[in-house]
Amino acid sequence: MKKQIAEFIGTFTLVLLGCGAAVIAGDLIGFAGISLAFGLALIGMAYGIGPVSGCHINPAVSLGAVAAGRMEMGEAVSYIIAQVAGAIVAALVLMAIASGTEAYSVAENGLGQNGWGAGYNGEYSMMAALVFEIVATFLFMVVILGSTGASAPAGFAGLAIGLALVVIHLVGINVTGVSVNPARSIGPALFVGGTALSQLWLFIVAPIIGAVAAGLLFRSGSLDGE
Amino acid sequence: MKKQIAEFIGTFTLVLLGCGAAVIAGDLIGFAGISLAFGLALIGMAYGIGPVSGCHINPAVSLGAVAAGRMEMGEAVSYIIAQVAGAIVAALVLMAIASGTEAYSVAENGLGQNGWGAGYNGEYSMMAALVFEIVATFLFMVVILGSTGASAPAGFAGLAIGLALVVIHLVGINVTGVSVNPARSIGPALFVGGTALSQLWLFIVAPIIGAVAAGLLFRSGSLDGE
Amino acid sequence: MKKQIAEFIGTFTLVLLGCGAAVIAGDLIGFAGISLAFGLALIGMAYGIGPVSGCHINPAVSLGAVAAGRMEMGEAVSYIIAQVAGAIVAALVLMAIASGTEAYSVAENGLGQNGWGAGYNGEYSMMAALVFEIVATFLFMVVILGSTGASAPAGFAGLAIGLALVVIHLVGINVTGVSVNPARSIGPALFVGGTALSQLWLFIVAPIIGAVAAGLLFRSGSLDGE
Amino acid sequence: MKKQIAEFIGTFTLVLLGCGAAVIAGDLIGFAGISLAFGLALIGMAYGIGPVSGCHINPAVSLGAVAAGRMEMGEAVSYIIAQVAGAIVAALVLMAIASGTEAYSVAENGLGQNGWGAGYNGEYSMMAALVFEIVATFLFMVVILGSTGASAPAGFAGLAIGLALVVIHLVGINVTGVSVNPARSIGPALFVGGTALSQLWLFIVAPIIGAVAAGLLFRSGSLDGE
Repeated sequence: MKKQIAEFIGTFTLVLLGCGAAVIAGDLIGFAGISLAFGLALIGMAYGIGPVSGCHINPAVSLGAVAAGRMEMGEAVSYIIAQVAGAIVAALVLMAIASGTEAYSVAENGLGQNGWGAGYNGEYSMMAALVFEIVATFLFMVVILGSTGASAPAGFAGLAIGLALVVIHLVGINVTGVSVNPARSIGPALFVGGTALSQLWLFIVAPIIGAVAAGLLFRSGSLDGE
Repeated sequence: MKKQIAEFIGTFTLVLLGCGAAVIAGDLIGFAGISLAFGLALIGMAYGIGPVSGCHINPAVSLGAVAAGRMEMGEAVSYIIAQVAGAIVAALVLMAIASGTEAYSVAENGLGQNGWGAGYNGEYSMMAALVFEIVATFLFMVVILGSTGASAPAGFAGLAIGLALVVIHLVGINVTGVSVNPARSIGPALFVGGTALSQLWLFIVAPIIGAVAAGLLFRSGSLDGE
Repeated sequence: MKKQIAEFIGTFTLVLLGCGAAVIAGDLIGFAGISLAFGLALIGMAYGIGPVSGCHINPAVSLGAVAAGRMEMGEAVSYIIAQVAGAIVAALVLMAIASGTEAYSVAENGLGQNGWGAGYNGEYSMMAALVFEIVATFLFMVVILGSTGASAPAGFAGLAIGLALVVIHLVGINVTGVSVNPARSIGPALFVGGTALSQLWLFIVAPIIGAVAAGLLFRSGSLDGE
Repeated sequence: MKKQIAEFIGTFTLVLLGCGAAVIAGDLIGFAGISLAFGLALIGMAYGIGPVSGCHINPAVSLGAVAAGRMEMGEAVSYIIAQVAGAIVAALVLMAIASGTEAYSVAENGLGQNGWGAGYNGEYSMMAALVFEIVATFLFMVVILGSTGASAPAGFAGLAIGLALVVIHLVGINVTGVSVNPARSIGPALFVGGTALSQLWLFIVAPIIGAVAAGLLFRSGSLDGE
């Protein structure tokens, strides 16, 4: 259970602080600030809980690790359950905190949910959202698998992965709000409902496709540093 | 005394540069800049004085370390005295520097004090402030205890902890100005007085609750990387 | 082929995320956000693919490594082909994603191409562009060769190099958009055409001059940490 | 000569990119962007030339190292000459690049020179400038001496020192533009003249006082991690 507790806390942190930055302070810190929030939350947890669970805190990453041959499917499932639970509780706590000011309502300000199309950030098409999420998660997973490989310098993976998440957000918040992580999308969508819920499928499917593709590339030996 | 001198200098630095960024340059660098200031000041000190004292520079962290079984209460008390003293002197020096421009007055511009409610940043409720400070300090302490554990990669803790403090500020400045550190709240409040002083209890109680809870979780073995 | 695949993916990432930040979110994150995007994309790849290929992802860097005596010309050529191919495909994918919103057209918004003179950012002269690109690439290559030398602390090079790229962008986006990397310039210019294409020579010549000069300085032993 | 060449290049880089960010892009990246530029330029050089010379690139740091008993005065003098020369050449190159746009004139836009009082940033008093520069350089030197001490984790000093320089700038650009480094102040002042030159003494005296005080504190054993 130790690993699952760690994954719960890690995903809780990512969603509370990442989506929290968007919901509570988005107007004040801008897209660059929100991008830093997601990436730095991941860095904190990479070193905080990484020694216990490896800090996946992302179902796509766990499935990508399975595809790469670095994790058993059974353990991945237990990780994913913990991750989704952590994200849901985080969305609840975020809603509780955000509701502490009269300026906020879930209906109007949301919970940092992902999306696309009319009324969502830069109003990008579904196809653009799909391409972005697949490609971004693929590249994210390359950083993860490469930086944690046997020939990578020890200890730096958490920084590299978190900073990669920052730049992915700098580019993609305007497109989809950036998921690359089904748990991060599920949490807010459950409480926001509506479009966030009807568009949720893309933020489950696309990150998994991208991460599994990277996992298979590493399993094939084409990018393994040894 | 070496450790206590280090804690004094470290907390002095955190408050002078963190609160200093808010007071002297807040309008120019925004919440994102202030967030970086607090976190990067901590990183500087983590490597500057960490080799001597471990760089707690935060009474909640010292008490959390006691709860985790990593520190004796007697030493924690000596740390806390040094930390609070460092924060108080920092607030004094900050006031001296800030008063060097006519645009500044303590009464109007404050010293980076924490707070909530009417007239304070996003005007969040006391309950939101309480929940945020407890949860944020809990997560902060998880990063601290996890990244300094026996199975964590050596040397990275300072970066992970400081960057975690950045993201906590990105989210929470709008809510409470972010304490997660009683000393950081006591210093400015003593000189600003008024609401800052009457609300000070929350920024002592909540961070301690959060940090001790994380310490107990680690002591229970539920998150220890061993 | 493993190394060339790595260089392809790495350069693809740098161009997609660096230029992508400019094209998709430039108005929202500003020059500072774009600067972070280029540098952090490089950091991610330094640890993601660095263990395989060394993560040059820049023809000037590969030629500078040859000048420094650290790489064979034959391998450098294979790297450069992969880098340019990666940059071209990245420009294509970026165009596909960016075109997913009606607010975008290649003709008007470009692809993050480099340039100078009337109508380009701060409207700097060709001479200023030339001096900046040569000097900036020279300094960039000093960081690269110094931080990866035998006497440098292991593992930190990726961070140092990426953060150096951030500051080079902070200064130079206003001057040339910052190349210091012929591949990064070729990709967008091919699809934008016009001035971007007619000015492309400078962003091939200047970075190579700067990087080779640094390489020769290191080969001469004047800066080698041994 | 190897060490002196390294110090020349390092200080050249700090001034060209730090002051360059202010002069060329200050209006676009703000004080936060300028702060990052100075700190990240230092990080790049810490790993780029640090293996050769230790990357002081700051006369106050070299004198502080003498005070701490870590450097001979003779070598410090040779370092300081190289540092000041590097800063002067950097100011020249910066002027050449900046003059490449009609929007720029040295008289009006300066070269990132330090200062205080009427017409300079937040219009702080000389006393505020003096206190800030002494205290900031003292804390900066604590980070330098502590993070490079025998009991500090190897390799992290460059990151800790550079990030400390970022936060010092976040706070102090509004007060003095931040020197903490006589060479960084001398270079621009020589070409800007006027007030920059008449106020230059403070940016030579104050950083040296602060750095030497920290050096003596470490020599006394009060902060040494062993």
